[in-house]
Amino acid sequence: MEIITSKANNAIKNAKKLHQKKYRKKSYLIEGWHLFEEAVASDADIHQIFVLEEMAERVSQYPQAVQVTPDILKDLADSPSPQGIVAVLAMPEQSLPKQLSGRFLVLEDVQDPGNVGTMIRTADAAGFDGVIISDRTADIYNLKTLRSMQGSHFHLPIYRVAMENALKQLKEAAIPIVATTLSEQSVDYRQLPKCKNLALIMGNEGQGISQLVSEQADYLVHIAMPGRAESLNVAVAAGIVIFSVL
Amino acid sequence: MEIITSKANNAIKNAKKLHQKKYRKKSYLIEGWHLFEEAVASDADIHQIFVLEEMAERVSQYPQAVQVTPDILKDLADSPSPQGIVAVLAMPEQSLPKQLSGRFLVLEDVQDPGNVGTMIRTADAAGFDGVIISDRTADIYNLKTLRSMQGSHFHLPIYRVAMENALKQLKEAAIPIVATTLSEQSVDYRQLPKCKNLALIMGNEGQGISQLVSEQADYLVHIAMPGRAESLNVAVAAGIVIFSVL
Repeated sequence: MEIITSKANNAIKNAKKLHQKKYRKKSYLIEGWHLFEEAVASDADIHQIFVLEEMAERVSQYPQAVQVTPDILKDLADSPSPQGIVAVLAMPEQSLPKQLSGRFLVLEDVQDPGNVGTMIRTADAAGFDGVIISDRTADIYNLKTLRSMQGSHFHLPIYRVAMENALKQLKEAAIPIVATTLSEQSVDYRQLPKCKNLALIMGNEGQGISQLVSEQADYLVHIAMPGRAESLNVAVAAGIVIFSVL
Repeated sequence: MEIITSKANNAIKNAKKLHQKKYRKKSYLIEGWHLFEEAVASDADIHQIFVLEEMAERVSQYPQAVQVTPDILKDLADSPSPQGIVAVLAMPEQSLPKQLSGRFLVLEDVQDPGNVGTMIRTADAAGFDGVIISDRTADIYNLKTLRSMQGSHFHLPIYRVAMENALKQLKEAAIPIVATTLSEQSVDYRQLPKCKNLALIMGNEGQGISQLVSEQADYLVHIAMPGRAESLNVAVAAGIVIFSVL
């Protein structure tokens, strides 16, 4: 296995660039054994593996593995304890297929990477068929989102598209569109039928869903809150509605 | 209104110390107008108010308000945009009252401040009567927890006690104890009756609930997950169960 000891090495410099969104066009970084094993199990396209000497044997079967110093690994990783491995993976195709059916979570301009990751993980736990994210939703390949997804992006497809196009395709596929609002002038989520085809739209943390979505949705729903908090965290709200339609 | 322009001022130095847990014995910091207004609305004991010149008029009726420079305010605040106000509040009493009744959320050794804050906000939204946190749960007065609670700690009491004592008092009050597990060898949460008296225990992110809790609980429940994620985020799981018992 090749050994890299200099931070000035090109492979290291190029991998480090992937911390910045502008360089994440075709590949992205993951860190830690859990995510690496999930990547292997789901046949992800692994471009490169950077590993510490004491763990190098675990990936010796991969020609794309190189051994690095603890210093370099720390530099490549985002978390204080990257657990000895960082890998560069190919980004899968993110455009929506022509034929849609099943249950989808749709995120409209959700800002916080932790919220985005947590909702994708929840949709995965619920056995949803995919997640559609608007083009202004937080990047799913930043390390914070990856941490909160816990590998769910290997389990279900995630499509990044403009909201208008997503709505158009969902309508064409006759998938009922359910959008959550804070307004009590809408249906209580507990009245939603259990359904095999559904697109559940969660809006931005501050603004909620857009005018366009509220016009196009087949159902507007809310979660009645008997207490004093003005709202729920968007990922908690998504969890409550997602598990209620199963 | 007094004006402070030096970071070496004692009031500033003492307030800044409150960023560190070891100094938060009797008071804590909040930042931003939303939290400040919630504090006022709930009659919190406000020790000190630090405000920028252009907003000083909004708090001119408070003798404990002092005007500070943008530089000092930035230093006192944790977030990059503290919205012009930071205040020092008295910490309320945190021990459990002798008589308990109603619905309680119980957090056993939850580590992440964001998760702790989000769950307290959810319990508040659901109209729960209080939150009990174990002594090893993340501090609720750190600024990250305060941000995710969004003022909910002004709406419902939060008790910090050792888990054994909490369990003992809940048993004495004959409040049914429900603890969540990942094991499917337990009751599906949808079979829980709606109940006016309940203590719902959420465990640590990695370990789940302790042996002690699983022995003492009246019901062990889980959330069936038809998908591929191994688990749900603890705050999402709490939201699903909390809203199912209302």
